[in-house]
Amino acid sequence: MDEFAIIDTFFKSLKSTRTDVLFGIGDDAACMQLAPGLELLVTTDTLVSGVHFLPTWDAYDIAYKAVMVNVSDIAAMAGNPCWATLALTLPAQDLTWLTRFSAGLGDALGLFDIALVGGDTTRGPLSMTLTMHGTVPLGQAIRRSGASASDLIYVSGPLGAASLAVEWLHERPTHPDLDESNYAVLLNCLKHPYPRVDLVPYLRQYASAAIDISDGLAADLNHLCAESHVGACLDLSRIPLHTQVSQYFQAGLLNPLDFALHGGDDYELCFTIPLALNDSFLRDMTHAGIACHQVGVIESALGLRQKTVSGLCLDLSPRGYQHF
Amino acid sequence: MDEFAIIDTFFKSLKSTRTDVLFGIGDDAACMQLAPGLELLVTTDTLVSGVHFLPTWDAYDIAYKAVMVNVSDIAAMAGNPCWATLALTLPAQDLTWLTRFSAGLGDALGLFDIALVGGDTTRGPLSMTLTMHGTVPLGQAIRRSGASASDLIYVSGPLGAASLAVEWLHERPTHPDLDESNYAVLLNCLKHPYPRVDLVPYLRQYASAAIDISDGLAADLNHLCAESHVGACLDLSRIPLHTQVSQYFQAGLLNPLDFALHGGDDYELCFTIPLALNDSFLRDMTHAGIACHQVGVIESALGLRQKTVSGLCLDLSPRGYQHF
Repeated sequence: MDEFAIIDTFFKSLKSTRTDVLFGIGDDAACMQLAPGLELLVTTDTLVSGVHFLPTWDAYDIAYKAVMVNVSDIAAMAGNPCWATLALTLPAQDLTWLTRFSAGLGDALGLFDIALVGGDTTRGPLSMTLTMHGTVPLGQAIRRSGASASDLIYVSGPLGAASLAVEWLHERPTHPDLDESNYAVLLNCLKHPYPRVDLVPYLRQYASAAIDISDGLAADLNHLCAESHVGACLDLSRIPLHTQVSQYFQAGLLNPLDFALHGGDDYELCFTIPLALNDSFLRDMTHAGIACHQVGVIESALGLRQKTVSGLCLDLSPRGYQHF
Repeated sequence: MDEFAIIDTFFKSLKSTRTDVLFGIGDDAACMQLAPGLELLVTTDTLVSGVHFLPTWDAYDIAYKAVMVNVSDIAAMAGNPCWATLALTLPAQDLTWLTRFSAGLGDALGLFDIALVGGDTTRGPLSMTLTMHGTVPLGQAIRRSGASASDLIYVSGPLGAASLAVEWLHERPTHPDLDESNYAVLLNCLKHPYPRVDLVPYLRQYASAAIDISDGLAADLNHLCAESHVGACLDLSRIPLHTQVSQYFQAGLLNPLDFALHGGDDYELCFTIPLALNDSFLRDMTHAGIACHQVGVIESALGLRQKTVSGLCLDLSPRGYQHF
C-alpha cells in the first residue's frame, strides 16, 4: 500500500458532517470557511514515541491522546475545536497499527465533530504532530495574560493521576492500595485525558485568564502568572487530588502533592475568576453540575507561593517536565 | 536553556508586522482574524532527517526548505501564505544549530510576510512539521479537480535539478560537465526551492486546476488527472529541463527526462489552462515577464501518456518517491 492508498484507507475515510470545510484531504491544501463574528485559534502538539507515549501502546490510545491534548489547548482559550491536520511519521508500514490508529483518531475527532482536513505521511522514527484549529467569538478568547490581583484561582478537577501512572510505568511501588485495578484507573487517566470543553461557555463569561495543565499545576500557573505580571498563592489543602493519588498519600509514600503540583498530563484547566464574579460563577457551576476547585488567589507580588496546612506562606518553585 | 527559553530566544523573536494576528506564540493557542471575503487554506509538511534532508545540512537550509515546501502548497491553491506553526523535534539542545535554524526560518518567513504564530518543541529524533495557513478570496482557490479535456498543461519552470542533486549526494558520477560548481548549482535547487507565488494571480484568473511538483511531474500530474477524472498526454520534447540536467543529457548518461518526470523536490507548479483562455494567459505571461512552458494537453481518456520525439503516443507510468 503506497502513501496515497494509506491516506485514502485510513484518513480520508474519517467522515465529518461539517459544512464549513469546503474541501479537505486530497488537494495541496484544505479550504475552510470561518463564519462571520469568529476568530481562528491554532495550536499544535507533537507526540514522540518514547517521550510522550510508549511504542508498545495501542495505536488507538496514541491517536486518541494526540487529539485530546490539542483539544485541551483550544478549550483553555475558550474556543470550540473544528478542524485538524495530522502529520504522521512511521518507521514502516504496519496496517494493523494504522487500523487501530485510524479508529482512535476517528473516535476522538468524532467526540467534538472535528474534521480531519489534511496531513502528511512520512517515513521515519514514530511521532505525530497534530495541528488543531478552533473558533471563538470575536474578542472572547481567554488568554493567560488577563489575571489580576485578588482573582481566585480554580482548577477544573482532580490532579496527579497521569503522572502517578508514569511513575508506575517506570517503577511500580509495591503497595496494597495500588493494585492492578488501581493501576488500570491511573493508566486510563494518562492515555485518555478528557479536555474540559464543558467549561468553555463559563470561561467566556467569567474567567480573566486560563491555561491547561499539561506540565503540572505549578509550572502552568507560573506561566499564567508570568504572562499576567502577577503572582499567586496556592492553598495546598484545597488542591484536589485524584482518588488513587490520595490513597498513595494515606500510605505515607511520596508526597502526592508532588504529582498534583509538578506532574504533567492532567489536561484539567487552571483559570482565574475575578472576585466580583465569583458568586455568579459558583451558582452557574452548581446549576451545571460541574465541580471546580478554588485552590488559591492571585497576588500582585510576583512568584508562586504555597500556603501550607499550618498556615505558613512559602515560596513554591515550579518544576514541570523539561524536554532539554 | 529550557524549552521556554528556547521558544523565547529563537522563535518568539521572529517578528512580523501582520495586523491579522491578534496574538501568537505564548498562549495555549494563537488567535487570528480572517478578513471578510477570504477563505482559509491549511497545509502541513513534515521534514525528517535522513529522508528529506541530511543531518549534516546547515540548519538554516533545513528551516528555509521547510517553509518553502509549505508555501508552495499554498501557491498551488492560488492562495497567499500568512501564518505558520512549527513543531520541532530535536535530539538535544544545540544552540548553534538553533541559531542557524531560527535565522533560516526568519528569512524564509520574512520573504512572504508570514507570521510564526505557534509551535511545539520536543525531544526526539530530528524532524519538523510546519503547518502553513493561507488565504484566498471566496471561491477562487484552484483545486486539482478542475481540469477538462482539451485544457493545456503548463509547468512553471525547468525541472529535474533537485533530484539530480539527490542522485549526486548518493553517488557522484564523474563527468567533466558536472564539476563542483555545477554541483553547487544543483544543490542550491534542492536546498532553496522558490515557490511560485508570482503565478498566484494568474492561476486565479486563468487556471482550471493546479498542483505543485513535489513528487515528480508524472506523479503529480497523475494526481491532478485522477482528481479531475481525465487523462493527459505529455509532449516530452517540450518539458523544460534545468540547464545542468540538460548537460547531463548531452553527456549521454542517464535519461534526464527521468529526473524531470520522476524526480521530486522541484516545487514548480503544474497547472491547466482552458484552450479559450490560452491567448490571454500567454499575453499576460509575456507582459509579466514569466516563462511558462506548455508541455501537454488534457484528454478525456484516463491515464498518462507521453508523445515521444518520433510522434508516438505511449503509456507513461508515474513513479514518484514512495515513503513505504
